[in-house]
Amino acid sequence: MFFHKQELQHHAKPEKADAVYARKLQEVLGGQYGEITVAMQYSFQAWSAHIPGKYRDLLFSVAAEEFSHVEMLATMIAQLLEKAPVGAVDGAVQSDPTIAAIVGGTDVQHAIVAGAGPRPVDSNGNPWQGSYITASGNLLADFTANANAELQGRLQVARLYHMTDDKGVRDMLGFLIERDTMHQRMWTAAAMELQEKGIETMPVPDKFPRDKNYLDASKQFINFSDGANAADGPWAQGPVTGAPEEGDFEYLPAPNPGVPMPAPTTPDPRFYGTTAKNDTVEKVTAKVKDALHRG
Amino acid sequence: MFFHKQELQHHAKPEKADAVYARKLQEVLGGQYGEITVAMQYSFQAWSAHIPGKYRDLLFSVAAEEFSHVEMLATMIAQLLEKAPVGAVDGAVQSDPTIAAIVGGTDVQHAIVAGAGPRPVDSNGNPWQGSYITASGNLLADFTANANAELQGRLQVARLYHMTDDKGVRDMLGFLIERDTMHQRMWTAAAMELQEKGIETMPVPDKFPRDKNYLDASKQFINFSDGANAADGPWAQGPVTGAPEEGDFEYLPAPNPGVPMPAPTTPDPRFYGTTAKNDTVEKVTAKVKDALHRG
Amino acid sequence: MFFHKQELQHHAKPEKADAVYARKLQEVLGGQYGEITVAMQYSFQAWSAHIPGKYRDLLFSVAAEEFSHVEMLATMIAQLLEKAPVGAVDGAVQSDPTIAAIVGGTDVQHAIVAGAGPRPVDSNGNPWQGSYITASGNLLADFTANANAELQGRLQVARLYHMTDDKGVRDMLGFLIERDTMHQRMWTAAAMELQEKGIETMPVPDKFPRDKNYLDASKQFINFSDGANAADGPWAQGPVTGAPEEGDFEYLPAPNPGVPMPAPTTPDPRFYGTTAKNDTVEKVTAKVKDALHRG
Amino acid sequence: MFFHKQELQHHAKPEKADAVYARKLQEVLGGQYGEITVAMQYSFQAWSAHIPGKYRDLLFSVAAEEFSHVEMLATMIAQLLEKAPVGAVDGAVQSDPTIAAIVGGTDVQHAIVAGAGPRPVDSNGNPWQGSYITASGNLLADFTANANAELQGRLQVARLYHMTDDKGVRDMLGFLIERDTMHQRMWTAAAMELQEKGIETMPVPDKFPRDKNYLDASKQFINFSDGANAADGPWAQGPVTGAPEEGDFEYLPAPNPGVPMPAPTTPDPRFYGTTAKNDTVEKVTAKVKDALHRG
Amino acid sequence: MFFHKQELQHHAKPEKADAVYARKLQEVLGGQYGEITVAMQYSFQAWSAHIPGKYRDLLFSVAAEEFSHVEMLATMIAQLLEKAPVGAVDGAVQSDPTIAAIVGGTDVQHAIVAGAGPRPVDSNGNPWQGSYITASGNLLADFTANANAELQGRLQVARLYHMTDDKGVRDMLGFLIERDTMHQRMWTAAAMELQEKGIETMPVPDKFPRDKNYLDASKQFINFSDGANAADGPWAQGPVTGAPEEGDFEYLPAPNPGVPMPAPTTPDPRFYGTTAKNDTVEKVTAKVKDALHRG
Amino acid sequence: MFFHKQELQHHAKPEKADAVYARKLQEVLGGQYGEITVAMQYSFQAWSAHIPGKYRDLLFSVAAEEFSHVEMLATMIAQLLEKAPVGAVDGAVQSDPTIAAIVGGTDVQHAIVAGAGPRPVDSNGNPWQGSYITASGNLLADFTANANAELQGRLQVARLYHMTDDKGVRDMLGFLIERDTMHQRMWTAAAMELQEKGIETMPVPDKFPRDKNYLDASKQFINFSDGANAADGPWAQGPVTGAPEEGDFEYLPAPNPGVPMPAPTTPDPRFYGTTAKNDTVEKVTAKVKDALHRG
Repeated sequence: MFFHKQELQHHAKPEKADAVYARKLQEVLGGQYGEITVAMQYSFQAWSAHIPGKYRDLLFSVAAEEFSHVEMLATMIAQLLEKAPVGAVDGAVQSDPTIAAIVGGTDVQHAIVAGAGPRPVDSNGNPWQGSYITASGNLLADFTANANAELQGRLQVARLYHMTDDKGVRDMLGFLIERDTMHQRMWTAAAMELQEKGIETMPVPDKFPRDKNYLDASKQFINFSDGANAADGPWAQGPVTGAPEEGDFEYLPAPNPGVPMPAPTTPDPRFYGTTAKNDTVEKVTAKVKDALHRG
Repeated sequence: MFFHKQELQHHAKPEKADAVYARKLQEVLGGQYGEITVAMQYSFQAWSAHIPGKYRDLLFSVAAEEFSHVEMLATMIAQLLEKAPVGAVDGAVQSDPTIAAIVGGTDVQHAIVAGAGPRPVDSNGNPWQGSYITASGNLLADFTANANAELQGRLQVARLYHMTDDKGVRDMLGFLIERDTMHQRMWTAAAMELQEKGIETMPVPDKFPRDKNYLDASKQFINFSDGANAADGPWAQGPVTGAPEEGDFEYLPAPNPGVPMPAPTTPDPRFYGTTAKNDTVEKVTAKVKDALHRG
Repeated sequence: MFFHKQELQHHAKPEKADAVYARKLQEVLGGQYGEITVAMQYSFQAWSAHIPGKYRDLLFSVAAEEFSHVEMLATMIAQLLEKAPVGAVDGAVQSDPTIAAIVGGTDVQHAIVAGAGPRPVDSNGNPWQGSYITASGNLLADFTANANAELQGRLQVARLYHMTDDKGVRDMLGFLIERDTMHQRMWTAAAMELQEKGIETMPVPDKFPRDKNYLDASKQFINFSDGANAADGPWAQGPVTGAPEEGDFEYLPAPNPGVPMPAPTTPDPRFYGTTAKNDTVEKVTAKVKDALHRG
Repeated sequence: MFFHKQELQHHAKPEKADAVYARKLQEVLGGQYGEITVAMQYSFQAWSAHIPGKYRDLLFSVAAEEFSHVEMLATMIAQLLEKAPVGAVDGAVQSDPTIAAIVGGTDVQHAIVAGAGPRPVDSNGNPWQGSYITASGNLLADFTANANAELQGRLQVARLYHMTDDKGVRDMLGFLIERDTMHQRMWTAAAMELQEKGIETMPVPDKFPRDKNYLDASKQFINFSDGANAADGPWAQGPVTGAPEEGDFEYLPAPNPGVPMPAPTTPDPRFYGTTAKNDTVEKVTAKVKDALHRG
Repeated sequence: MFFHKQELQHHAKPEKADAVYARKLQEVLGGQYGEITVAMQYSFQAWSAHIPGKYRDLLFSVAAEEFSHVEMLATMIAQLLEKAPVGAVDGAVQSDPTIAAIVGGTDVQHAIVAGAGPRPVDSNGNPWQGSYITASGNLLADFTANANAELQGRLQVARLYHMTDDKGVRDMLGFLIERDTMHQRMWTAAAMELQEKGIETMPVPDKFPRDKNYLDASKQFINFSDGANAADGPWAQGPVTGAPEEGDFEYLPAPNPGVPMPAPTTPDPRFYGTTAKNDTVEKVTAKVKDALHRG
Repeated sequence: MFFHKQELQHHAKPEKADAVYARKLQEVLGGQYGEITVAMQYSFQAWSAHIPGKYRDLLFSVAAEEFSHVEMLATMIAQLLEKAPVGAVDGAVQSDPTIAAIVGGTDVQHAIVAGAGPRPVDSNGNPWQGSYITASGNLLADFTANANAELQGRLQVARLYHMTDDKGVRDMLGFLIERDTMHQRMWTAAAMELQEKGIETMPVPDKFPRDKNYLDASKQFINFSDGANAADGPWAQGPVTGAPEEGDFEYLPAPNPGVPMPAPTTPDPRFYGTTAKNDTVEKVTAKVKDALHRG
């Protein structure tokens, strides 16, 4: 069960309205790596968890915190939109670039659709979508997805921090950035524990039985481009990451010769695909007619 | 520049056609974590790279390999679809569950739209989309995204491996799984090197100046749910992950008291939002009329 | 702030697993009128509210309840997926319609992507999206949207009720249906109060100054089809709904003669649209060349 | 059958071109509540109707009128785009904010893709989509959806009215607003008639047999937030809306104690979900190997 | 203006219900190349036309006919869904593959969402979207798009014809296929006339002034793969198609040597992209701090 | 297999940065008719080809070239974004239209999400999607789709050419335009050869057996609008295009009388659709209860 309390975790009050910035801030509310994404991602991971206890407790906790961050951002955006003359004009916009500039910089749906309210979209107005989230049931895979989300998210908030000098906005972003710092640390720590305890290890999924025939393929860096420096990395030489017992990485400057492509397919003639020339029109037509007759 | 050679990196030939399995295999061709995603993700990261040399060389190389994997899967799917009577029926399907079963298990657009060919969609027929990829320009963030993609991808291929006993399909998947193993190792090794060399470290972005006022927030686990076991993890006690010099994690069993929500906003009356009751109809209407008169 | 408690509002436990039904139940979790939609819709309406007090309190309360319903459905779906052999097969599916049937009836991404967990998608696998919600800042418009959502939602749950005879599932749906009953009543009551108190009335927005020239258009039913029975309704005769002082509805059996279409447009030749024939190739080319020369 | 006549229902001619406003106007052409939505919504409701006669006649009629409104808006947008120098520049935009302003305020696809023509998208360039419409087969549910669409639509057009002072545009919008007034009245009248005649009543669907065990749940307002004013509404006290025979609404200041969450699920090990710690790696691996051996 | 008449252009009555086929038929109602696409495409082309007269008359006419085809298909689908026990079951589906087969083969949203009615989606349940259409303002480009739409559409209907043996369905499809034949001929004839009269010719747009420096690039087939047979086509030898005065096509067995890639970019440090190693942490941090200080 | 070489096919270097133009250029990178579309379209057509040899060789070759064009555009966009102060501001944007103009004209996700890098989206920020491509297995249909893509694509690049005066950008576009010229010629030549050799002819698919009953429908232009000039085209008179042996086109000034619509459907009462009035509430409820009892 979820409960709501009419308080915010931290102050979310701008010094003044700024509809252009409101649009930008939508990215971390409703974008690919915005707060709706992490709130939903951690919730679905909790509901998909297969063991009770600390990992699921962790997921439920952070999910609820992230919904609280969604609320802080939504509240902030509403205020940023409050006083701005969002698109309401006194003359034709076309002839007044000053106003066109404001219109262009804002999300016009903030005005037309939401009446100066926040929206579940990103900074380009793309609606948030369920395909942004990851919840596989495998905790090592998912905690890695979570770490990635927090890295990308903190990076975006840091960029947004530089795009305003409003002290109120910066205060809120400064707080959120430190929570993102915590969350980067948290998912990293949790992923490490999983591996140290042997609950899950890499390669994920570690319980899948390796195919002995292709073990070489798991330690070869094969160069499909022409940048020779790719040989210099720890992925192309030295002991295999996380599995030194498997030997050293190997560098292949180019792929081994491939295998011939299988012959093109020849499906049922009733799909009317273009087939070989010596399959004369008459023969194909006959086949179709026959097939048609049968059904 | 990209070049194409009419060979495959590895065999991609099923023992027999299986249109139902072809649909499932679409997930790792055109799904969120399919081969199109990683091919495009690594390409865009390479084009967004800010330094020449080994990391960009790495990205270009693996991007091209992943496009080659796209091709292996597409070729496999075409053959899986080849002989199956994909939806072509001799009687009303409704009265013959045997045929309905086949239809239900297949992607009907394989038949109707592609004429028994592969499609850039996932196993539910959702078209691949650009919002699946991540390319931020920050290599530590992006290599973490890449590691995540390879973990999720290998997990999905492993599940798919169990859903068929076709030796040809399993041979191809077995090879791809080991390449995914390599790619998990590779991105992990590359991310570690970035940190060891101090090029990028966590929290990402590490060059962002921390706000001294909120450092506490970067090491507190705050419980927003009621699962007490969340206190037992390495995210809630012991030295801060990756930054022991900042002290120990702290566990808060519940959030501190929040701050009051800011007052609701009152935008321009011409947005026709519902405002406070003592803002009488007459007054609001007057305001609108006045505004209307002005523009 | 949102808080989470590891309890459910009501039992959500099926008698037995049923992966086919799990897919159907996704509709009311992640579909257009599913629980995610109403939870997010009421949240955004609360964040967009312009007056403190009971209406906003109402929105925050029901939003949190709906998130709790999201959780009940997600929990139920996880269990429905638990024991089913979701796609894991012992032979080629193609040759065994029995298994193809199960595969066809299920959401294959439940297996491949979520490892037998719930997903933020509808019953056809379309991801939930932000464009499902409505939050305009005008409470009468939005409470009407809410009433609509609850009507459509209850209708869908009622249909789903008939598609299973699992006592555990039916018990949960029976409870949810009565909460939907309450919510239909609630939004209707709230919308009526807004009108009775004159806070908002129809037509929405009521503060917009009517255009005297077109008042006729606000009470004419104009028939654009040929079904004569359309004249028999209360929308085509008798006093104007909600505004008897404006007189009676009027029935027009067909639209009045229209006005001529404006002449087609002739934009800048550099858009290379096809223009009138007597605008010879030479003249157009000359215009383009001239424009090109200038910029 | 649909027929077309090269006339417009009302004048749609701007005083002058205004590409920035053209973009905004796209919202009510191709947005969530634009004219394409209502035209398609009423059409699909008509095709899904289960009784001949006045309700279906009504739907067919208004559907065709709404397609005529689509045409008026498209014609208007083409003219608004006609003379504007849509993105065609004589110098680098970057160094000339005047031109950047115009570009920013316009839909650049109007220029690049449509060559100064209207597009089936909203004001942020999101393509219109079929998931905007509602057609359930239940007329009371659908007429409520229609009323909602007309409320939201009129609200958006009213906002757009204030964003221009072009007399031609305002004349067209003034007319459309009165047609929206009519349509609000019409759907309200039709929904009332359905209820008065007992064809459909609330709660929808009214033929679904109520579950006696949960009747309480249909009249309790349960507060999941902390806003005490939610108790003051007609949804939390007094006779049940539309069903006084069922008694009075009840106010619960908080949910009753919930029920424990069911135990986490443990699906087939071949999904490689993370399971309980005492399920040792060896045991899980053995299970997988065994399963793998079997298929 | 559009008008509606309660008649169909041709019979649309199945012999019997078939919910599985109803789902398939959705492809040509609401798919990429379905009737909604062509109806909307021709409408938008008409509204974007820049000359009055026969081409625009043609577009308006066919647009209205295509809306009438939308109606035929929607009516047919409603009947195909009428009697089928769409998902309503007497036992758990999981244990009865016969019923699972039916469920799997159908669009479950036909039942849950539409109550056995047609929907604006394709055969996989993807909603129709505005990005399916093409309307550029250039008639030769657009008539080619129209020809393509009719070719793809007829191909899909032909495939669907073979997937049923219902005489009523086949009768309707047989009629639609001949209308598609007409429409293929029509757009081809219209495109030819444009070229014969010199209104538009290829390459589109023909008024764009060719760049003398790159004329060679307009007649070279450059092989980026290793299939030598590509040299045998009329695109790699003989006179240039449509412009013999420009000489003969040329075959290049491989691209000429390319040019070096430009150096990687180094944007503002406040984007926190990963930059060159010798750009020490200290220096980058200093730059950011400085930038931060400034704004 | 695909290989990558760190060279570009042609120079892609702007004279100076221009973030506003970078956004526009996204259209031909990631839009409906951008380079990603053609690269993926030709690839999927090659993988769906049913005959080895020159047509498949052609497809593979051009696919790889188009991926090389994707790279040129991505490289160009990165440089256009390099020096621009993309959204980084020294004051509140709201009060400085000069900066708002830049922000409005740019894709803000270029800054926030990609850190000044290219993205797989169009000029309005809509992500590229798999539904942009066409690959049917029928070469005449698909080569027509390809010709259309090159016509639309060249048209868009030509428009973009006029929107900048940067010599570096214009040089690259000039080259791409001539490659598009070649590709228009190439697909036209290939489509003609298919027809001349009788491999495929129109109407597509030509092997589908025509229905003798409806041959008239394949040569009648039926006017569904009121534009009389539609009679003047070669689609309404003279010999049938491509099939003079079938006689002359015919002009019908209006459709023949249609057929009556079938009666509305009456599905299972458990869908709770609104049915005929004389189907009393009692009777419907009884039916539902009975059905409910049964399952």
